[in-house]
Amino acid sequence: MTPSRIRTLAVVGTGLIGTSIALAARSAGVRVALEDRDERALAAAVARGAGTPLSEGGSPADLAVLAVPPRAVPEVLRDARERRLAAFYTDVASTKGEVVRRAGGAPDFVPGHPMAGAERSGPDAADEALFRGAAWVLCPGQGTAAAALDTVRELVALCGAAPLEMDADEHDRAVALVSHVPHVVASALAAALRGAGPDVLALTGRGALDTTRIAAGDPELWRQVLGDNARHVARELVEVATSLSWVAIALAEVAERGDRRALDRVTELLVRGCQGRAELLDAVRARR
Amino acid sequence: MTPSRIRTLAVVGTGLIGTSIALAARSAGVRVALEDRDERALAAAVARGAGTPLSEGGSPADLAVLAVPPRAVPEVLRDARERRLAAFYTDVASTKGEVVRRAGGAPDFVPGHPMAGAERSGPDAADEALFRGAAWVLCPGQGTAAAALDTVRELVALCGAAPLEMDADEHDRAVALVSHVPHVVASALAAALRGAGPDVLALTGRGALDTTRIAAGDPELWRQVLGDNARHVARELVEVATSLSWVAIALAEVAERGDRRALDRVTELLVRGCQGRAELLDAVRARR
Repeated sequence: MTPSRIRTLAVVGTGLIGTSIALAARSAGVRVALEDRDERALAAAVARGAGTPLSEGGSPADLAVLAVPPRAVPEVLRDARERRLAAFYTDVASTKGEVVRRAGGAPDFVPGHPMAGAERSGPDAADEALFRGAAWVLCPGQGTAAAALDTVRELVALCGAAPLEMDADEHDRAVALVSHVPHVVASALAAALRGAGPDVLALTGRGALDTTRIAAGDPELWRQVLGDNARHVARELVEVATSLSWVAIALAEVAERGDRRALDRVTELLVRGCQGRAELLDAVRARR
Repeated sequence: MTPSRIRTLAVVGTGLIGTSIALAARSAGVRVALEDRDERALAAAVARGAGTPLSEGGSPADLAVLAVPPRAVPEVLRDARERRLAAFYTDVASTKGEVVRRAGGAPDFVPGHPMAGAERSGPDAADEALFRGAAWVLCPGQGTAAAALDTVRELVALCGAAPLEMDADEHDRAVALVSHVPHVVASALAAALRGAGPDVLALTGRGALDTTRIAAGDPELWRQVLGDNARHVARELVEVATSLSWVAIALAEVAERGDRRALDRVTELLVRGCQGRAELLDAVRARR
């Protein structure tokens, strides 16, 4: 698509997400100015062709993407406004409750969260197609300017994603379920495989490979993500841990007493898992 | 490859695994005779071009694959021998301890387990490439005839898989870790997503999709698999459930007291998860 509202884009934070957005914008013909406190990350993003380093004193960009950690968003936003970095602002923080509480409500800021990531991080892993077909949550408030929302929606569209407006707390519970809990579960599974030895691991099929893929994510980044959404993640995680404990108890009964009736409880979980998986596929297909 | 030992193959049980083996054998020019108690499954496999229905009274095949549930293997093997179905026999049961205890030790039988599957079951889901690049465990005993082992190894090779000889109990612990526990974990995660609603599920990215893929497996089939390997699965599952509970407790502390030091325990699991994932990838790559 050809953007009509965004001719110039500023991207603060040239990690995986920021650089991927910059690459998608560049592909659509947008002029992109990049900034990162980490000079190596900035240089790597520039080398990827994601844009040119932001020069001080230029005219404000049409939109600035603050692709920084959630807890840094309010301060980076304040600083960006002081510098008149852009007409409008959006962020990409993976939890929104805290951001909206501390920085929401302004007419020029649309809190956002593109629902995509990769097991690798940093500008070298960036990919202009990262968001294609993904959902991109926007949490505008009552005071958000229509022009700000329209501009951010244009960014979402030029990244090939589908915008989805949602309340911040609703978003945080949802991402706990569909993103944060799966990450912890994949990590716990991969952790259990550690030290099993090459002979055992060589037996792995596509199943365990897929199930543990996201466990390779950056632990420091995920520590922050989980900490920022601690309440929702804890609650949903308990449900999964309880299910697993029930199955373990049922199987221990089978092993000790040879009474296979205890397997009914196992079947029950397996059936619920099939249903959840089917609902998930339906929802993802409906999005496309 | 062109098989030298297997000119005729009998396949008893034309589900996903049996039919996939039959298709791979047919592609290599082997004559395949098929048998299934379920006439529809047999007809579907024949319609897929996997072979022709087994006719009584023919000369014995070079090898028979018993692609039936683990607990049925000893009886099906006894029956096949009485009928002089083949010179040698192998099975594909996903747990081996029980099969080896009840039917192992004979010179003509090589217990086996191809480490591949799919989220769909039945002959319609069969794929001659299903085993390509996968490990295929063989559990020969001291009494196994060399010719039997060589013949089964040829079957493994013509399916494009890599044979791996292993003790039956060692195998069962290994598959608990790399296959059965991942299945239960994926099911528990998918079950937690059930009923979340289309708006929430629409936020799902590739992470949760990959992590829950295997949860779509047939519950009745998996009930059997888990029941047959109950002791090993229960033990490994407890470890995963405990990890998840620890993370839930740490996150609840963060949410209640705002004390982010509890996140150290979370980071610890995430780091172990990264290590486990890296070891897994190393082992799988080394296999190729």
